[in-house]
Amino acid sequence: MNATITTQASESQTNNLRATLLYPPTNGDMRPMDMIKVSATSRSTSVAGAIAGVIRDQGHAEVQAIGASAVNQAVKAIAIAHGYLVLDNIDIICVPSFTEVLIDGQERTAVRISVEKR
Amino acid sequence: MNATITTQASESQTNNLRATLLYPPTNGDMRPMDMIKVSATSRSTSVAGAIAGVIRDQGHAEVQAIGASAVNQAVKAIAIAHGYLVLDNIDIICVPSFTEVLIDGQERTAVRISVEKR
Repeated sequence: MNATITTQASESQTNNLRATLLYPPTNGDMRPMDMIKVSATSRSTSVAGAIAGVIRDQGHAEVQAIGASAVNQAVKAIAIAHGYLVLDNIDIICVPSFTEVLIDGQERTAVRISVEKR
Repeated sequence: MNATITTQASESQTNNLRATLLYPPTNGDMRPMDMIKVSATSRSTSVAGAIAGVIRDQGHAEVQAIGASAVNQAVKAIAIAHGYLVLDNIDIICVPSFTEVLIDGQERTAVRISVEKR
């Protein structure tokens, strides 16, 4: 489902934070969307900046994390991004779900968190 | 801020999952609200049942977790509860934030996740 085009979100300067253009798998809206992949070593403030940037640009961001530490960083980043965006009068909410991803030929369960304007 | 009255959410039968009646600290609505405390050893399906029960009863639940493993269990529980509640035509969203809690005299930063009907 992931598109082959890869882009960097404006604030994602850390090497462990990647944003990939993809098409949302859950609804019929085929507008390209930024996927923010969070790892255990991602800095939550950097991820927060990336989320805030994508929300300002597109109004909707997708965050993906595999493993407890990465999920924790993702959730903290969303809490921080909430604080950033309140300053722009944007109130964000999120919806977590599970998704299967293929990593090095192995299927892993990732947590996908959809971040949206309320 | 926590009220002294303690209750068990209907599905919270595991000993590491406690639901405490409290008053929401962030807004003026002083309706009592269930607080679901999640630990690293909480089973996410049990927590999901507790969240679904509180949402059905009150329309709003507060989940609190300290540490990466607990936050991960909490987020997985919300994703599972989302699936439970979709069967009742209830769509939930969540809003994470930080809060300071006193544990054994030490101040810890907890992640608080407000779960609401969309």
